Amino acid sequence: MAEDFKVTPWEVTGDIDYDLLAERFGTTQIDDELLSRFERYGKLHMMLRRRIFYSHRDMNTIFDEYEKGNKFVLYTGRGPSGNTHLGHIMPWMFNKWMQDTFNVDMLFQFTDDEKFLFKQDASLGETRKMAYENALDMIALGFDTKRTKIILDTENVRTLYPIALKVAKKINFSTAKAVFGFDNTTNIGSIFYTSMQAAPAFLASEMASRNIPCLIPCGIDQDPHFRACRDVALSIGYTKPSQIYCKMFPGLSGSDKMSSSDPTATIYTTDSNKEVKKKVGKAFTGGCVSVEEQRVKGGNPEVCAVFKYNYYLFEDDDKKLNELTERCRNGEILCGECKVALTEKINVFLEKHQEKREKAKDVIGDMTFEGFKW
Amino acid sequence: MAEDFKVTPWEVTGDIDYDLLAERFGTTQIDDELLSRFERYGKLHMMLRRRIFYSHRDMNTIFDEYEKGNKFVLYTGRGPSGNTHLGHIMPWMFNKWMQDTFNVDMLFQFTDDEKFLFKQDASLGETRKMAYENALDMIALGFDTKRTKIILDTENVRTLYPIALKVAKKINFSTAKAVFGFDNTTNIGSIFYTSMQAAPAFLASEMASRNIPCLIPCGIDQDPHFRACRDVALSIGYTKPSQIYCKMFPGLSGSDKMSSSDPTATIYTTDSNKEVKKKVGKAFTGGCVSVEEQRVKGGNPEVCAVFKYNYYLFEDDDKKLNELTERCRNGEILCGECKVALTEKINVFLEKHQEKREKAKDVIGDMTFEGFKW
Repeated sequence: MAEDFKVTPWEVTGDIDYDLLAERFGTTQIDDELLSRFERYGKLHMMLRRRIFYSHRDMNTIFDEYEKGNKFVLYTGRGPSGNTHLGHIMPWMFNKWMQDTFNVDMLFQFTDDEKFLFKQDASLGETRKMAYENALDMIALGFDTKRTKIILDTENVRTLYPIALKVAKKINFSTAKAVFGFDNTTNIGSIFYTSMQAAPAFLASEMASRNIPCLIPCGIDQDPHFRACRDVALSIGYTKPSQIYCKMFPGLSGSDKMSSSDPTATIYTTDSNKEVKKKVGKAFTGGCVSVEEQRVKGGNPEVCAVFKYNYYLFEDDDKKLNELTERCRNGEILCGECKVALTEKINVFLEKHQEKREKAKDVIGDMTFEGFKW
Repeated sequence: MAEDFKVTPWEVTGDIDYDLLAERFGTTQIDDELLSRFERYGKLHMMLRRRIFYSHRDMNTIFDEYEKGNKFVLYTGRGPSGNTHLGHIMPWMFNKWMQDTFNVDMLFQFTDDEKFLFKQDASLGETRKMAYENALDMIALGFDTKRTKIILDTENVRTLYPIALKVAKKINFSTAKAVFGFDNTTNIGSIFYTSMQAAPAFLASEMASRNIPCLIPCGIDQDPHFRACRDVALSIGYTKPSQIYCKMFPGLSGSDKMSSSDPTATIYTTDSNKEVKKKVGKAFTGGCVSVEEQRVKGGNPEVCAVFKYNYYLFEDDDKKLNELTERCRNGEILCGECKVALTEKINVFLEKHQEKREKAKDVIGDMTFEGFKW
């Protein structure tokens, strides 16, 4: 039985039982029927095939409306507290695929206010700077520069605040306590904050003066925000936004979530080849203590961080992934070889990403919501 | 002994014992020494002579800095939930006198967000509209159109929000509960709101990148906000704003605060001569049941709403006020005569005010902070 775990927008600890988590949050698991609706629009994204994106709220509404010609807007975001790592860009890649597949607009919110409020030592100057850095990574993934708008809370607050006020008026402290685990020591900005994260879900509707469906693909740790947001939507004249949730991208140490708090187990998008080699070299694997033992008993890919990196992000080909699984279990391939191969894949990806990240500086100014200047 | 009373920014009930209130809030009563500092700059305003403005926090700092050449900025405001009445403009008149006397800038905040959050049935469209109407009354009082800026929270939030965030990060729910009496049913917008009311106190400093003293003349019911604001000021790099507080303008029914919830006991700036006559005619007085009795026993100006109106607003001449007091106590003047005289004074004032209020429409566009459009 899994140990107890905790998943909130600000803390992920323990070994996550994702089935149990979906049950606790009350989200629906993605089933074959839903996948077949996705398949009408092209080959399933690897993260859907592998149920990395595994749970949702009201995805069928999104398809129903889309099929009636009522396009949805995508909305996701990032709390800019540090450098971008692979765990951040995983759901962004899925968003990019969704944008391409359905040809839709996208709102990307950087919650510099959130990070300022929730991090003891963060300044607004720092969270703004990190938002800029993080946005370069988002753009580098190839989002449509015309259809994608970057929201920075402190810059776009004039438009967001009236929507946030409507949300805030409908959520009392009791609810906020229950949903987010706040207590008497929580600061009053943090208590209000969820309203600001709710606002972009209604922004397209607000601007168009009609209800535009909103789909939010993001980590399931954000569900508390969107549960609260959905609960008030109808009462303030909007339709409920839909969500599609992914699992947490694992850390190299074998933990459930890649975390910036352990930089040696975290690969940043700005890491050098050498840093990647070093970090992957120290990754937790499912291998045996000796080569001899592993040749006989085989490895255990299920607990292996290196395997997970292939599974989550770096081996799109299911056949090749299955082969890798077999070869590991049979003892044909050793951890060292796997690490070398993954390092190579990551470095190929990062080299291209870093080039595109540099080029992103030329277009970021055109992608800000309401044209704010960084 | 006075009955128990309650004074919060949102509720004033009972017979207010102002000495006790100042003690409860921990504000300092204005003494002769402080008045003599005011007197250096001209004849004392009637509201100071009569201790209508009666209590303060750190007024001496304001004078100390002013005398060193460090001018303060005035800041006051209004929660735009309804038409302006005489109770609202009383402290505004004092602000206008302060501006003229000390030749200083003034920030006037309209808290449309507050009224939306705290009033069950208010919409943002309505609170915005009321802010415009209220602002006309403020301008009609003759504030320097160049030195006075109108803040509307939802319009100027881009500038206010970063300051509000700094404040909010330093106030926890425990404090908010204790200061404002919030509980689990309070909505999360209301809990956050005090940060938005704190923001203009630091705005001049923020814009000048140096500490500019701020003086807030307003009703003492607003003290909870500014107590919380002062408590966090130093920790976020600002000096504490100073306050000078007035008593509540009485209602015509004899109650302690003129309230919009009883329109028959409330004189609005837009009332016609006829309406004023009718309302003053029904005012609570300190007279006796019969003319004969009053001629013998005299009236009681202390409880008389008509007398209070002269005292608070309509009889600037202390000698004339004393004469009126004597003539009332001696039974020389009857309530009917007093009512006719007050009606006349109010109508003379309102006629001129209404003219200036119309003209205010021509300049209001130039007085908005950061040039927002109504």
